[in-house]
Amino acid sequence: MSISADSTTHESVAAENAVPEPTPEEAAQLEQLYQDFEAGNLIPLWTEIADLMPMVPSPKAVPYVWRWNDLYPLAARAGDLVPVGRGGERRAIALANPGLAGTPYATPTLWAAIQYLGAHETAPEHRHSQNAFRFVVEGEGVWTVVNGDPVAMRRGDFLLTPGWNFHGHHNDTDQPMAWIDGLDIPFVHYADAGFFEFGTERVTDEATPHVSRSERLWAHPGLRPLSGLQDTVNSPIAAYRWEHTDAALREQLLLEDEGHPATVSQGHAAVRYTNPTTGGDVMPTIRAEFHRLRAGASTEAVREVGSSVWQVFEGRGTVVLNGESKVLEKGDLFVVPSWQEWSLHAESEFDLFRFSDAPIFERLNFNRTYIEGRNK
Amino acid sequence: MSISADSTTHESVAAENAVPEPTPEEAAQLEQLYQDFEAGNLIPLWTEIADLMPMVPSPKAVPYVWRWNDLYPLAARAGDLVPVGRGGERRAIALANPGLAGTPYATPTLWAAIQYLGAHETAPEHRHSQNAFRFVVEGEGVWTVVNGDPVAMRRGDFLLTPGWNFHGHHNDTDQPMAWIDGLDIPFVHYADAGFFEFGTERVTDEATPHVSRSERLWAHPGLRPLSGLQDTVNSPIAAYRWEHTDAALREQLLLEDEGHPATVSQGHAAVRYTNPTTGGDVMPTIRAEFHRLRAGASTEAVREVGSSVWQVFEGRGTVVLNGESKVLEKGDLFVVPSWQEWSLHAESEFDLFRFSDAPIFERLNFNRTYIEGRNK
Amino acid sequence: MSISADSTTHESVAAENAVPEPTPEEAAQLEQLYQDFEAGNLIPLWTEIADLMPMVPSPKAVPYVWRWNDLYPLAARAGDLVPVGRGGERRAIALANPGLAGTPYATPTLWAAIQYLGAHETAPEHRHSQNAFRFVVEGEGVWTVVNGDPVAMRRGDFLLTPGWNFHGHHNDTDQPMAWIDGLDIPFVHYADAGFFEFGTERVTDEATPHVSRSERLWAHPGLRPLSGLQDTVNSPIAAYRWEHTDAALREQLLLEDEGHPATVSQGHAAVRYTNPTTGGDVMPTIRAEFHRLRAGASTEAVREVGSSVWQVFEGRGTVVLNGESKVLEKGDLFVVPSWQEWSLHAESEFDLFRFSDAPIFERLNFNRTYIEGRNK
Amino acid sequence: MSISADSTTHESVAAENAVPEPTPEEAAQLEQLYQDFEAGNLIPLWTEIADLMPMVPSPKAVPYVWRWNDLYPLAARAGDLVPVGRGGERRAIALANPGLAGTPYATPTLWAAIQYLGAHETAPEHRHSQNAFRFVVEGEGVWTVVNGDPVAMRRGDFLLTPGWNFHGHHNDTDQPMAWIDGLDIPFVHYADAGFFEFGTERVTDEATPHVSRSERLWAHPGLRPLSGLQDTVNSPIAAYRWEHTDAALREQLLLEDEGHPATVSQGHAAVRYTNPTTGGDVMPTIRAEFHRLRAGASTEAVREVGSSVWQVFEGRGTVVLNGESKVLEKGDLFVVPSWQEWSLHAESEFDLFRFSDAPIFERLNFNRTYIEGRNK
Repeated sequence: MSISADSTTHESVAAENAVPEPTPEEAAQLEQLYQDFEAGNLIPLWTEIADLMPMVPSPKAVPYVWRWNDLYPLAARAGDLVPVGRGGERRAIALANPGLAGTPYATPTLWAAIQYLGAHETAPEHRHSQNAFRFVVEGEGVWTVVNGDPVAMRRGDFLLTPGWNFHGHHNDTDQPMAWIDGLDIPFVHYADAGFFEFGTERVTDEATPHVSRSERLWAHPGLRPLSGLQDTVNSPIAAYRWEHTDAALREQLLLEDEGHPATVSQGHAAVRYTNPTTGGDVMPTIRAEFHRLRAGASTEAVREVGSSVWQVFEGRGTVVLNGESKVLEKGDLFVVPSWQEWSLHAESEFDLFRFSDAPIFERLNFNRTYIEGRNK
Repeated sequence: MSISADSTTHESVAAENAVPEPTPEEAAQLEQLYQDFEAGNLIPLWTEIADLMPMVPSPKAVPYVWRWNDLYPLAARAGDLVPVGRGGERRAIALANPGLAGTPYATPTLWAAIQYLGAHETAPEHRHSQNAFRFVVEGEGVWTVVNGDPVAMRRGDFLLTPGWNFHGHHNDTDQPMAWIDGLDIPFVHYADAGFFEFGTERVTDEATPHVSRSERLWAHPGLRPLSGLQDTVNSPIAAYRWEHTDAALREQLLLEDEGHPATVSQGHAAVRYTNPTTGGDVMPTIRAEFHRLRAGASTEAVREVGSSVWQVFEGRGTVVLNGESKVLEKGDLFVVPSWQEWSLHAESEFDLFRFSDAPIFERLNFNRTYIEGRNK
Repeated sequence: MSISADSTTHESVAAENAVPEPTPEEAAQLEQLYQDFEAGNLIPLWTEIADLMPMVPSPKAVPYVWRWNDLYPLAARAGDLVPVGRGGERRAIALANPGLAGTPYATPTLWAAIQYLGAHETAPEHRHSQNAFRFVVEGEGVWTVVNGDPVAMRRGDFLLTPGWNFHGHHNDTDQPMAWIDGLDIPFVHYADAGFFEFGTERVTDEATPHVSRSERLWAHPGLRPLSGLQDTVNSPIAAYRWEHTDAALREQLLLEDEGHPATVSQGHAAVRYTNPTTGGDVMPTIRAEFHRLRAGASTEAVREVGSSVWQVFEGRGTVVLNGESKVLEKGDLFVVPSWQEWSLHAESEFDLFRFSDAPIFERLNFNRTYIEGRNK
Repeated sequence: MSISADSTTHESVAAENAVPEPTPEEAAQLEQLYQDFEAGNLIPLWTEIADLMPMVPSPKAVPYVWRWNDLYPLAARAGDLVPVGRGGERRAIALANPGLAGTPYATPTLWAAIQYLGAHETAPEHRHSQNAFRFVVEGEGVWTVVNGDPVAMRRGDFLLTPGWNFHGHHNDTDQPMAWIDGLDIPFVHYADAGFFEFGTERVTDEATPHVSRSERLWAHPGLRPLSGLQDTVNSPIAAYRWEHTDAALREQLLLEDEGHPATVSQGHAAVRYTNPTTGGDVMPTIRAEFHRLRAGASTEAVREVGSSVWQVFEGRGTVVLNGESKVLEKGDLFVVPSWQEWSLHAESEFDLFRFSDAPIFERLNFNRTYIEGRNK
C-alpha cells in the first residue's frame, strides 16, 4: 500500500471544502446543539475525525532507547531500599514510554521491566490473566516456579509464564540477579480483561533442577508426548534455552555460507519461539524472536502495524528509528511503536531479542507491513 | 471461577504486610530513587499494581442508557445545522460513555453513533481499516454503496462495511433517515492500527435495487457460489434482512412451544449474524446478535469479559445493570462494560439488537463468563 | 503439472535398462527366491511397480452413463417383487461400474443408487458410519426421518443423513416415489471403518411437515442460532430446498448478464452445498454441487484427482468423457473416475446435480486439477 | 460404544424377518429382474448389505507377524540376485498380508517393506504422490537424498520422504544396509491418486554430512526459522534422530518415577513424530510413534478404526492379537488391522516403532477407539 507522497489529510480536505461561515443565529444554534450533545453524553464525529481516524497510524508512543547501564544500577538501588513480597509482589521497574503520559507502558499494549531479586529472596506466588515471559541478558541463580515446576533462569534463556499459571521466583544464591519481564499488562488493562489471584508466600517447589519438567516432556525437536495430544493455547515449554537458540542461529548463517536459503535476508538469521502443539506463537498476545546479524549486515527499513520491544543480547550496532540513528550495546532496550520505520545495522556480530504484540494484529486482521523500496 | 465473597485485594494484602517505616535517611534515598526513575522514564510496579492488575476487571466505562427520544431530535437538529460532506465525512453523533473522560466511545473498544442523512443528501465515499456496520431501527430510503454494490437500508436490517471497503451513503428520498453505526474505532485508535483513504464525492453507483448483488450471490441458506470458494475474513453478505432474522426467531419460539430445544433459555430466542464462508463472526472484531424475549421472560444475570452495546428494536422491558433497573423502549441504547452484571426482563415481546467486541477476547483467549447462581 | 507428451513409463524405462539375461543357475536361484518370498508372505516391489505406481492415475473404474429411462422401470419392477423392510433394509439398486468387477460401486469411493418406496411403505430406521444423502429428480410424498426429525422430500431437494444418525423413510401417499441415494459405502468398506445399528421398525415420527425442524432452526441465510454455537462435523441442515438452489443459480446468471462476476465461467452457474457452521462441505467425505449451464454454454475439459457422479436434473446436453460424447437427458447419471477428462455442453438450459469424493482428497492433500489448454 | 454381547446382525435379522417363499411365477420374475439388473450394470443393496455394511469393521486383512530373522536373509539374497536401478527403482520387499489376496499390502492402506542396498549401490532418484518414510532398526552408511538434501540413516532414526519430493538413496560404505520403508501405496492405488516422475540416475548430492540441512534449520525444540513461517502440509524435518527419541522416552519414565504425569499409562512412555509447523502428524496419511514399555508393563487391550504396523526396535515381549499371543524380538514386525484387539506386554524394557493410517480416519471423522473394560 502507498504511504507515499499523497498529502491528502482530513485537515487538508476540510480546508478545501470549507463551508460558508454560519450566520450569528446559526452559530448560536450550533453552540446550543453542542451543549445539548454534551449534556446527553454525545460527541459528534465531524469534529473528531482527524484525530480519531488518521490516514496512517499516528501513535502517541515514541521510539525510545533505555540503557542497560542506567537500568541495572537503579534496579540494584531498589534492591537495597524496597523489600520484595506480598503487596508489591515484584521488584520490577517498567520502561515508561515518554509519549504515553506517565503510564508504566513501553507501548500501548506491552509492558517491559527489569526485575531484580536479591540473594536468597523470594517473590511470592500469584497468578493473573496477563501473559508474561522473562528474558535473561545476564546472570543466573533464580528459579521461577510455574504451576509447581521449578525453571532455572540462565543467560540467553526465554521463559514463559502464560496467563493464569501460578508463579513465583526465588533466588537460590548469594548474588542478586536481574532480568527482563515482558507482559501484556497494558492491553489487558485497556481491555478490562484481567483477573488476579494470590498464591503461596514461598514458591511451592524449592528444588533447583537444571531443566524443568516441562522441558523434559516437551523440548525434544518434532516429538510430542502421547500424554499431551490436546493442543494448548500457550506453549507447554517453560524455558527455551540459549544453547538451542544459539545453535539454530549459527546453523542458519552456516547454511547461508554454504549457499542454501536459511536466513531472513543476507547476513540476518532469526528464529521465532513457538508453541509446539500448534507451530504458532508461544502465547495469544505476545510474539518473541531472536535475531542475529553478521558484522556489517543491515536490515531493510520497515514499518509494521503493532509495536515491539528489543533488547541487545550481545554485540554492538545501531538502530535507525524514523531516520534517527542510535548506537546500541549489550542490554540496551528500545521500543518501536506502530508504523514507525526501523532498521538495524551491525558493527560486530549483533544478537538481539525481540518481543511484540503481532499476534493481536494478525488474529484480528489488522496486520500490515511496508518495506521501503518495495512495491507493497 | 469465584468472584465471590473473597475480599482479598492488593490493598488489603499490602496493609497486612505493611513494612516498617523507613528511617529518615532511607526515606530520602527512596525519594531520590523515585526521582531517578522518573528522570529515566521508568515507573515501578509496586506502586501501581493495585490499579494495573485488579482482582477482577474494573472498567472505567460505566453502564449507561441513551434514549432514542433524546437522540433522534438532536440528530435532526444537526441535520439542519451541519452539512454532510468531505472533511467531516459523516453526520454521526457518538454515544460518549460518561466514565470515559470526554472520549466519543461507548466502551473502550466500541463506537456507537446515530447517523442522520437528510433528503437527497450524500455522504461521500471513503475507506478505512475500522470495521463498521449499520443497524436500522426505523425508516428507509438510504442506499449504502459498499465497494460499488448499492445496499438498500430498511427497518430491522443489519448491514456490513468491513475494513478497507470503500463506502458512501445516499438518500434517494424526500425524507431524512437515521440509523445506528457500530465500529471498532476506539480499539483501532488505541492499537494504532488505522489507515484511511478518501474515495469519490458521490457514491460510485446510484442505483436503488431492492437487494444488493452480495445478497443475490450469497444469501441463500447453506449454498455457496463456486465463484466464491476462498474463505474471507469478513462476511461477503452486505445485508442481513429483517425478514430472515424475524423468521429465525419466530421459528425458535415455535419449536420451543412444540417441545424441541431451539432457544437459548426458556422464552429467549437469539441468532448470531455470521460469515457464511466460515460460520464465524461477521468481522474479526465485532459480534452481532439479535435477541427476542417472550413477554414475561427473563435472562440470567451474567458477567462477561468484554463490552457490548444493545438497542431495543421493538417492545418494552427492563435491563438490570449491576443491580439497577432501567425501563427500555423502542430505540433506546445501553452499554454493558466488561464484567458488569446484566439481565433482561420482557414486559411485552421484546426484540433487541446487540453488538460486542467478543471476537477480540475469544481470539486472544481472554473470554470468561460468570452466570450468577451457577458454579462456573 | 505436465501430463503431456512425455511417454516415459516404468515399462519403457525398464526396457531401456534391461539387465543381462540371468545364467541358468541365477535363474534357478531367482525362482527359489520368489518362492521363498511367497512362502514368507512377501512380494517384491520391482515386479509390481508399474501397476502399483503408475505415472498418472490409472483407474479401473470407467466413465459410464446410466439412463433414467432404464433405471426407473427396473426400480418399479423391484417395487412389485421385493418387499422393503428389516433385513434388506432398503429397496436400493446401485450403479455398478463396469470396470469394478462386480462390485456395486459407482466409483472406488462412491455409492449411487436409485431407491424406490411404494405407496404407504416404510423403510425401517437404522444408523451407520457411512455418510448418506438423497437427491430427488422427480416426485414427492416421502418423508425421511433423521434423528427423529421428519424431512419432506420433493423434486430438486438435496437431503442429508450424515454418519451415525438414525434414519428411516415412509411414503405417506398412494403413489410410489424414487430418488437417488449417494453414500461413501465403498470407501468405508475399503477402509474397514463401518459400524451399523438397527433402529425402530417404523419411523420414530410419522408427522408430515412441509419443512423439517432442522431447516426451521438453521436454514436462514447467514444466521446461526445461539443454541447451536458448537461447530459440527456435518451440516445441521437436513434439507437444501430446490427453491433456494434455483434462486441462487438464477441470480448468478442474471448478475453475469449485468456484467458482474458471479459464475464459474461464461454461462456456467454453480453452487456448493455447505455446512453453515464451517462453510465447508456438508459431510467429511462427500461434496455436493448443483450446476446450471445456459443453452449453448460449455465447460472446459478438466481432469481431477477423485471421482464424481452426476445426474441431469433438467434440460438436454452432452458430456464428453475422455473424448467420447454422450447425449444426456433428464435423470441420466454418469460417473467420472479419477483423472478422466470431462466437459459439458448444453443444448438447452442444462441443470445437473453432482456429488464427489473431493473432500477426501483435499483433506489428505492428494487433490490436483488439470485444465486442458491452461498451464497448470 | 457398545460392541458387546448384542448378536444382532443382518443375517439374524433377515432370518427373523424371512419373507414368504415366492411363487414359481414370482421366482421367475425375480430371476429376470436380477438378470436385467446385471445387464444394466446395476446391483441391488438387499442382497449385499450384510457384507457391505457389517455391524463392526470386518477386515479381510488379518493380524500377522513377520520375523526379522526371516526377512533380512531374504533381502540379502535379493541383494545378490536382483540389481537395483531404473525400472525396478528399489530393492524393496513388501509385507503381503495373507488376508489380502496376493497384494503386496500390509493393510488395505499401508505398505511396509524391507529395503536393502548393497555396498556402494545407488537407488536412483524419482518422486511420487505417495508419502514415504524409512525407519532404521539396524545398520548405517546410507544417505537418502530428499529434494537435494543428503540425510544420513542410522539406527533408531525415522526419516521422511513426503509426497512429490525427489529422492534417491546411496550406500557410501563397503557394507550393505537394510531398513524399513513405510508408504501409503495401497491407499493411493485404491484412490487413484498417484503420480510418478523419474529423476536423475545418481543422487543429486553425494555429500555425506552427519546431519541434514533440514535438521540444521528445523530440529531445534520450539524454534522456527523466520525464513520458514509458512505452514507446510508435511514436516520439514527430514530426520528424527534416535538420540532425541530415546531421551524423550527416558525422561517420561523418569518423570513417572518422580510422581509426575508424563506417560500414557503406568510404565508406558510414548512419543508421536510431528510436523513442527502445525504440531500435527508428519504427513497427511501417516502417523508415526515410538513406544517404550518398562519390563513387566502392559498396555490395555484396545480396538481402533484403522490399521497399524509395528516393529520391535529392542527388547523382548509379546503382543496379544485378538486373543492370540505372539512372542516378539528385535526387528519383528506385526500388523493390526482395523478394529482388531491388541495389547502389548514387556518382558524386558521393550521399544517399538509404530506407524498407522490414523490421520486418514481422523481427518474424515471415522476414528473410534474401544478400550476393553472402559465404558466408552
